[in-house]
Amino acid sequence: MCGIVGYIGKKQAAPILLDGLSKLEYRGYDSAGMAIFDGKKINMAKATGRLKVLSELTHEGATLPGTVGIGHTRWATHGAPSDINAHPHFNEAGTIAVVHNGIIENYMKLKKKLLEKGYKFQSDTDTEVVAQLLDYYYTGNPLETITKVMHRVEGSYALGIIFAENPDVIYAVRKDSPLIVGRGEGENLIASDVPAILKYTRDVYFIENEEIARLSEEKIEFFNVDGESIEKECKHIEWDIHAAEKGGYEHFMLKEMNEQPKTIRDTISPRIKDGRIVIDELGMSDEEIRNINRIHIVACGSAYHTGFTSKYIFEGMARIPVEVDVASEFRYRNPILEDGALVIIISQSGETADSLAALRMAKERGVKTLGIVNVVGSSIAREADKVMYTWAGPEIAVATTKAYSAQLVAQYLLAIKFAQVRGKVTEAEVGEMLRDLKKLPDQVEMLLSHKEKIQKFANRFIAAKDIFFIGRGIDYAISMEGSLKLKEISYIHSEAYAAGELKHGTISLIEDGTPVVAVATQDALLKKTISNIVEVKTRGAFVMAVTNEGNTEIEKTADYVIYIPQTNAYFANSLAIIPLQLFSYYVAVGKGCDVDKPRNLAKSVTVE
Amino acid sequence: MCGIVGYIGKKQAAPILLDGLSKLEYRGYDSAGMAIFDGKKINMAKATGRLKVLSELTHEGATLPGTVGIGHTRWATHGAPSDINAHPHFNEAGTIAVVHNGIIENYMKLKKKLLEKGYKFQSDTDTEVVAQLLDYYYTGNPLETITKVMHRVEGSYALGIIFAENPDVIYAVRKDSPLIVGRGEGENLIASDVPAILKYTRDVYFIENEEIARLSEEKIEFFNVDGESIEKECKHIEWDIHAAEKGGYEHFMLKEMNEQPKTIRDTISPRIKDGRIVIDELGMSDEEIRNINRIHIVACGSAYHTGFTSKYIFEGMARIPVEVDVASEFRYRNPILEDGALVIIISQSGETADSLAALRMAKERGVKTLGIVNVVGSSIAREADKVMYTWAGPEIAVATTKAYSAQLVAQYLLAIKFAQVRGKVTEAEVGEMLRDLKKLPDQVEMLLSHKEKIQKFANRFIAAKDIFFIGRGIDYAISMEGSLKLKEISYIHSEAYAAGELKHGTISLIEDGTPVVAVATQDALLKKTISNIVEVKTRGAFVMAVTNEGNTEIEKTADYVIYIPQTNAYFANSLAIIPLQLFSYYVAVGKGCDVDKPRNLAKSVTVE
Repeated sequence: MCGIVGYIGKKQAAPILLDGLSKLEYRGYDSAGMAIFDGKKINMAKATGRLKVLSELTHEGATLPGTVGIGHTRWATHGAPSDINAHPHFNEAGTIAVVHNGIIENYMKLKKKLLEKGYKFQSDTDTEVVAQLLDYYYTGNPLETITKVMHRVEGSYALGIIFAENPDVIYAVRKDSPLIVGRGEGENLIASDVPAILKYTRDVYFIENEEIARLSEEKIEFFNVDGESIEKECKHIEWDIHAAEKGGYEHFMLKEMNEQPKTIRDTISPRIKDGRIVIDELGMSDEEIRNINRIHIVACGSAYHTGFTSKYIFEGMARIPVEVDVASEFRYRNPILEDGALVIIISQSGETADSLAALRMAKERGVKTLGIVNVVGSSIAREADKVMYTWAGPEIAVATTKAYSAQLVAQYLLAIKFAQVRGKVTEAEVGEMLRDLKKLPDQVEMLLSHKEKIQKFANRFIAAKDIFFIGRGIDYAISMEGSLKLKEISYIHSEAYAAGELKHGTISLIEDGTPVVAVATQDALLKKTISNIVEVKTRGAFVMAVTNEGNTEIEKTADYVIYIPQTNAYFANSLAIIPLQLFSYYVAVGKGCDVDKPRNLAKSVTVE
Repeated sequence: MCGIVGYIGKKQAAPILLDGLSKLEYRGYDSAGMAIFDGKKINMAKATGRLKVLSELTHEGATLPGTVGIGHTRWATHGAPSDINAHPHFNEAGTIAVVHNGIIENYMKLKKKLLEKGYKFQSDTDTEVVAQLLDYYYTGNPLETITKVMHRVEGSYALGIIFAENPDVIYAVRKDSPLIVGRGEGENLIASDVPAILKYTRDVYFIENEEIARLSEEKIEFFNVDGESIEKECKHIEWDIHAAEKGGYEHFMLKEMNEQPKTIRDTISPRIKDGRIVIDELGMSDEEIRNINRIHIVACGSAYHTGFTSKYIFEGMARIPVEVDVASEFRYRNPILEDGALVIIISQSGETADSLAALRMAKERGVKTLGIVNVVGSSIAREADKVMYTWAGPEIAVATTKAYSAQLVAQYLLAIKFAQVRGKVTEAEVGEMLRDLKKLPDQVEMLLSHKEKIQKFANRFIAAKDIFFIGRGIDYAISMEGSLKLKEISYIHSEAYAAGELKHGTISLIEDGTPVVAVATQDALLKKTISNIVEVKTRGAFVMAVTNEGNTEIEKTADYVIYIPQTNAYFANSLAIIPLQLFSYYVAVGKGCDVDKPRNLAKSVTVE
């Protein structure tokens, strides 16, 4: 996730771009840059770090003259944060400048081809490939060139492009990454998101997939991928700037929950090629994977819960024993790390203090380490022997939703890969799982669309003092995350329990009206969990159940049932967590809590 | 733990013995028996099962004439529950009858000697050895004979003895097992506990260690172990019968907490011989112990918490990787059980449904199993490949205290044994640990004696809605048990957290005045835990800390500090849990909860 902006008009572009980027910093902030046409050539400025570094470097834009330009604030994906990897990127001659938000999935293949043709590359980014490819296909007609490039690249992109040879226009292209065009008076703008342009205009076009926009000072034209002209409707934005930053959502948390389909898709799709799982960045040979005899998953908070889920999957599918540890416990308990062990560290920020220390300890002990990390170039990403990124983009809300979902699917991929290499699953089984994985984003979307139903239900629990979550197996792991989400933001004391363990003590807390959330997505355990529901019902509990479509028998015991679509039992977590996230969110909103910034909590815990 | 009674007087003895035994059933109920002198010889009746079986067998005692007799209700220790193993036991000629509560630790050695002398044994019990030994040393003078036997046997005992050759007296002897004498009008009685005789008299002598009582119809005399006459004071009992069953304690739970020094001593001392750990009943060769490459500990509730503690010890001391599982999860998650794995199942009752099913699954998979069980002859005891008993005796209160403590020390012994065989600890280290182990009963006693202090403090928390327990490493395991105890009986929603994990979500629940119990017995982690205490203090928590004597620096941050005596860091759980049990107990009492029978809970969970 990155933010892009573009300006064409009569004013100096650079200060406007800096201002627009400042509204997009929530989309990324590891480096930033601008490219401005000064009447003769394209000049650029780039800087690693937050936007203010670029701002200072250019004296608030003053040192970059010109009225046509594009800008970018980066959230590293391919290539660590650095001046060189910062956008914009150029062709060798410096006559084509590109800013990009998204991931070009086939960039390695394209880069290889271009290298063979004699192209030289400056950066490690996928974006530079786009700039060079525009050069390679350049026909003198920018629109034609762009459509050619669109046919060649795979993945997601929102692009802003300027050509030195056609300095009176900016091109904007979009596929699976957000992009809007703002229509001003004698000036037009592009941006990843509305807030960036709201100071200049409230008239906005939302660019759809595979559409191209061409902006001049006075005119905005749209084309489809075949270069044919299309008509688009202009919309007037009524939101205030604050709401706009959240994309019209009331809270970042709600926005980020709604970004989960994209997050899951972005994390999965670059790693499925021709029906196989390819995790190139892992750099692990099949031999290495076969030699793993034990996995330690080490993490904190929600990331720990994803490890708890994937223990079931690694053990069940790949038959590799897995131990899951809270990082602050692992690092101090002198764990037994045997030869052939792999330590997987999971962290959104890549800076979680205990997780980082655990990583370092494992490395000192000579054990192989793998980081599953969201922030490229973070400490854990740098220091782990191998790193697998979750492509969730910046997460602003303290309570994680989309990073959690991305961590889950990253581990599904890893488990399937390991199981396949170790001969524990057949090709047919893998095929079926990949089909199920690909369906997840749409299924999550569907579950998110039922939010009003959950909101209505959640309102009944605003006064609850205690809520229990129960489940068995993977459903227990989901329960832990559902419970943590609720307590984090609503301050209701909730607790997750292995459903079969409740009667060994905790059931004494169940009294008339105590809310219990029962998760029952594992068909093999359904009957067992239903009898646990009966146990708590007998003591007066009010039960909300989350189960698979078709398990209607649960309605006989539970008071309220939420159904999730069918998927592989191992992936159920990715679906069942959605209603639980929504439930927590609406309970917290109903209570008037500060959802995005709950008391006492910080986004990434960089202290012990 | 068993119950014994004896009667000498003018009435028929059998119905009185049956009535007395019915008041002692809380001490054991797997079989019962009586021996009555009918004027010519000693007759007896025994029956497996609850007392009512014996009662029906003898037509409420009618079929056993005679006015001198002893009776017994059994809680199996050596030898499974059966008619043959039921008490009383006899010499071969049937002229000496013995009932016994306690454990003769050197009975194997004595039995061997007697077998060599040509004695034949009927039962597997240690008690029969006493009866035969009385025969072997019999001089015609019962008192002299008894003192000789007392010098030969090691262990704990309360004995009731009748000799056919001296039918007008009953002898009673005591060491480390309770025994009282009741003084009636023309009749006298002995019993393990006051309630058994309260219907007949309220005048009672409490027999002390290594004292002997001789009762006739009209007279009661006392002697020391050298056979010298001593004076004892008679006490008048004011309690009602209900209180008396609880030994004067208000609740069984309090009584059982106070039995922990004995429980720990009984579980440890028979297994330490000449400075070495001998767990004969284990029947595992050193070779077998060396070949264990992984331990799975499977249990429910508090027993699960003891496994959580011993994971740290097995891993830390013996360097064997341990995985601890809740039984209801283990049995359904298709766990990976490798060659060389040992599955340890822990259960007080030996009938816990999920634990039993887990045991059966492990056996089906061909993995070695070891049961740590309190009830001899229970399903888990019978079905596990090996069994190690905790000698806690019957536990009546639903919330376990003494069985938990016994399970802990049993696992300490096992871990030290494994570490020693595998060469991971030196002789000197073992020597030091055994010294620390032997100190535990007195240290526990001392902690129990401070109960008023904790009661006073506990009263402040009667209105608390939520209480958190935090700790690191073994202290986390203690916290789990402390938290469970509290929620079980006080219905306060308490939750244990690894101290370092709190800030990843749960700390949002801490507000002004929230009580937090911080356990910090592990000196290596003290500073880390103190900083977690500071974190919660900053958010307004009221902190009670449990730490080692000497760690006074903690007083700077915690609001209230309880110190426990120094012991090996691995054994700290056995001490730290005492104030936490007392805390839970007094909070629950303060709230007026039904401490012994908390709502919704059953003593042993024999359903899934």
